[in-house]
Amino acid sequence: MNENGTPQNKYPGNFVADSTIVDEMFSDRAVTCPCCNGTITPQMLQNLLAQAGQLQQGQAVFRQLPSGGNGMMIDPHAHMIARTTDDYEAMARAGIVAVIEPAFWLGQLRTNVGSFIDYFSTITGFERFRAGQFGIRHYCAIGLNPKEANNPALAEAVLDIMPRYLGKEGVVALGEIGYDEQTELEDKALRAQIAMAIEFELPIMIHTPHRDKKRGTTRTMDVLEECGFDPARCVIDHNNEETVQEVLDRGYWCAFTIYPSTKMGNERLADIVNQYGPERIIVNSACDWGVSDPLAVPKSARLMASRGISAEVIHQVVYANALSVYGLNQEMQEAHWCQPAKIDQRTLYSGNSVLRGQTPRVDEEVLNPDIIR
Amino acid sequence: MNENGTPQNKYPGNFVADSTIVDEMFSDRAVTCPCCNGTITPQMLQNLLAQAGQLQQGQAVFRQLPSGGNGMMIDPHAHMIARTTDDYEAMARAGIVAVIEPAFWLGQLRTNVGSFIDYFSTITGFERFRAGQFGIRHYCAIGLNPKEANNPALAEAVLDIMPRYLGKEGVVALGEIGYDEQTELEDKALRAQIAMAIEFELPIMIHTPHRDKKRGTTRTMDVLEECGFDPARCVIDHNNEETVQEVLDRGYWCAFTIYPSTKMGNERLADIVNQYGPERIIVNSACDWGVSDPLAVPKSARLMASRGISAEVIHQVVYANALSVYGLNQEMQEAHWCQPAKIDQRTLYSGNSVLRGQTPRVDEEVLNPDIIR
Repeated sequence: MNENGTPQNKYPGNFVADSTIVDEMFSDRAVTCPCCNGTITPQMLQNLLAQAGQLQQGQAVFRQLPSGGNGMMIDPHAHMIARTTDDYEAMARAGIVAVIEPAFWLGQLRTNVGSFIDYFSTITGFERFRAGQFGIRHYCAIGLNPKEANNPALAEAVLDIMPRYLGKEGVVALGEIGYDEQTELEDKALRAQIAMAIEFELPIMIHTPHRDKKRGTTRTMDVLEECGFDPARCVIDHNNEETVQEVLDRGYWCAFTIYPSTKMGNERLADIVNQYGPERIIVNSACDWGVSDPLAVPKSARLMASRGISAEVIHQVVYANALSVYGLNQEMQEAHWCQPAKIDQRTLYSGNSVLRGQTPRVDEEVLNPDIIR
Repeated sequence: MNENGTPQNKYPGNFVADSTIVDEMFSDRAVTCPCCNGTITPQMLQNLLAQAGQLQQGQAVFRQLPSGGNGMMIDPHAHMIARTTDDYEAMARAGIVAVIEPAFWLGQLRTNVGSFIDYFSTITGFERFRAGQFGIRHYCAIGLNPKEANNPALAEAVLDIMPRYLGKEGVVALGEIGYDEQTELEDKALRAQIAMAIEFELPIMIHTPHRDKKRGTTRTMDVLEECGFDPARCVIDHNNEETVQEVLDRGYWCAFTIYPSTKMGNERLADIVNQYGPERIIVNSACDWGVSDPLAVPKSARLMASRGISAEVIHQVVYANALSVYGLNQEMQEAHWCQPAKIDQRTLYSGNSVLRGQTPRVDEEVLNPDIIR
């Protein structure tokens, strides 16, 4: 043991090695998770077995999806650069066929436009490739987020280079933009980008603030209207019960982000869908580098099914609505995942592979008579 | 279905929505994984139950770790900015107390030094904070990787700004540096950085090339010697059976990266440890945005234990050796995880939280009589 006497609290978030947990891993009381290789404790195993026992209940409805649905889902808000290939695999297994990655802030404020150039290039480039290698179609939204809009020199530089990316393949919207602390600089960047979306004929994805959400959401819609932006081409995201009515009344698409272990969970979403119906309601995970769940959309679908919500309604909320609004500029089309080329993990992107020595997955030519080649 | 006729093979890695898998998720044949929320198929469940049945075997040895070990592990090569909070939680549960994040290339080549500035700031800043919020101590290595060294203007700019970061808190080495395609420009950047490591009194982490590994590894060590760098302060990484003997003979630390489902798996590592003993052997996951496993170190420890390798030997390979070499500049010390402050997830980093609306984990004051406060 080092006796140098580390100053107290020098390191934020230090911890004590939890010997109970370590013991669990290496004792005869732990097994490895077959899907993610995590550690499954006896309690987890017990819950799993109980869950398996309940499988007969509540799942039947979703199997009766209308033709055209086939259990396919879209996660229209997912920061995939912060997620793993295990996540992509789990999402594909769960029925997610496409994701939309909106540009946003990262954990730490960027200090120069060069970072944005490489970030925009990555979400329109390598990340799109990486998703495809696991059977997921990847689209994105380009924008300057409100937090970093508060650096005026940086904001100006980012707005200057954004047009280079707005017309790129796979860019389905301008976003996510909006308010964080509702400052003057955020307002300026928001208005400039609404004008840009009109010019480039792009839909908009709006980030609503976590603090002072109700007022911030109303103010955002006021600004959109002042700028003459068509609500039918705009998704207001991160809604809750306080905002849903006004957002729908004013004609916007109304998205809900489902984070694990929070107040805005699947249950409340199901309540909202029951109350307001599926029209213009969208669900997403917003999974990123924080505590979030890339399977939030499929889990919401399952929960809605178990609550007796019809397959048609679920299909609209987890798939069709997102496709309607983010498909407006034709960059995102059902044909991309229904008439795709096969997966070939031998493919490289600028010399980069998603594999690390594994045997590449190379799918056989698809024998689907509906596909014209 | 859109009839616009997407050109064939326009999108690399397109796929067919696999209706069998979708059905699995939504039929009565799937359950949710209790540790990662993935989908557990009937086959996985069966394997899991079989595994649980075998728990009595092979795990006993590792429980007898010498005091001071206590099952703690270090993953001395992990690109955590590409991993999730679920990964951090699983690593902490498995006994990993510290990680080292070496600077490297990302999926896509960066085009300007601004990206490197923000990248170095993040791995010395926010990522360090994020790890701590889940009970893991985070250190890093700063360096210009060989792939991006092939852009000469960029390389020069990155080498110019690197000294700003080499003395930062938590920087334990210069790395990962070395050869990719063994070009002249890679050679130039390697030599410049060896000189820098000498000047800043930092250990070096060497990336050995995936192609032409044997020759590239020998050449790297030749250059290190020409530059007068002490092998006892240098880790040669990504070794295999072809390189291990020479690396050890020449006095270097010899690291092995264990990727899932590859030739260089746990079994071969155990063979190597059996053959060469634990001296100067290090194991890591190199987990990143490709197919990799953040639990490679604990899994290697378990496999070695099940093969009858002694607790002392395992402790050296999964913990003590990494601490010896990466602890040389005193930035990484056992006290950081053995005498830590408590976890408080209410903490923010420049206004950013790792939580997304969840209840923060706030640990009680640690009641360990060995800790002097």
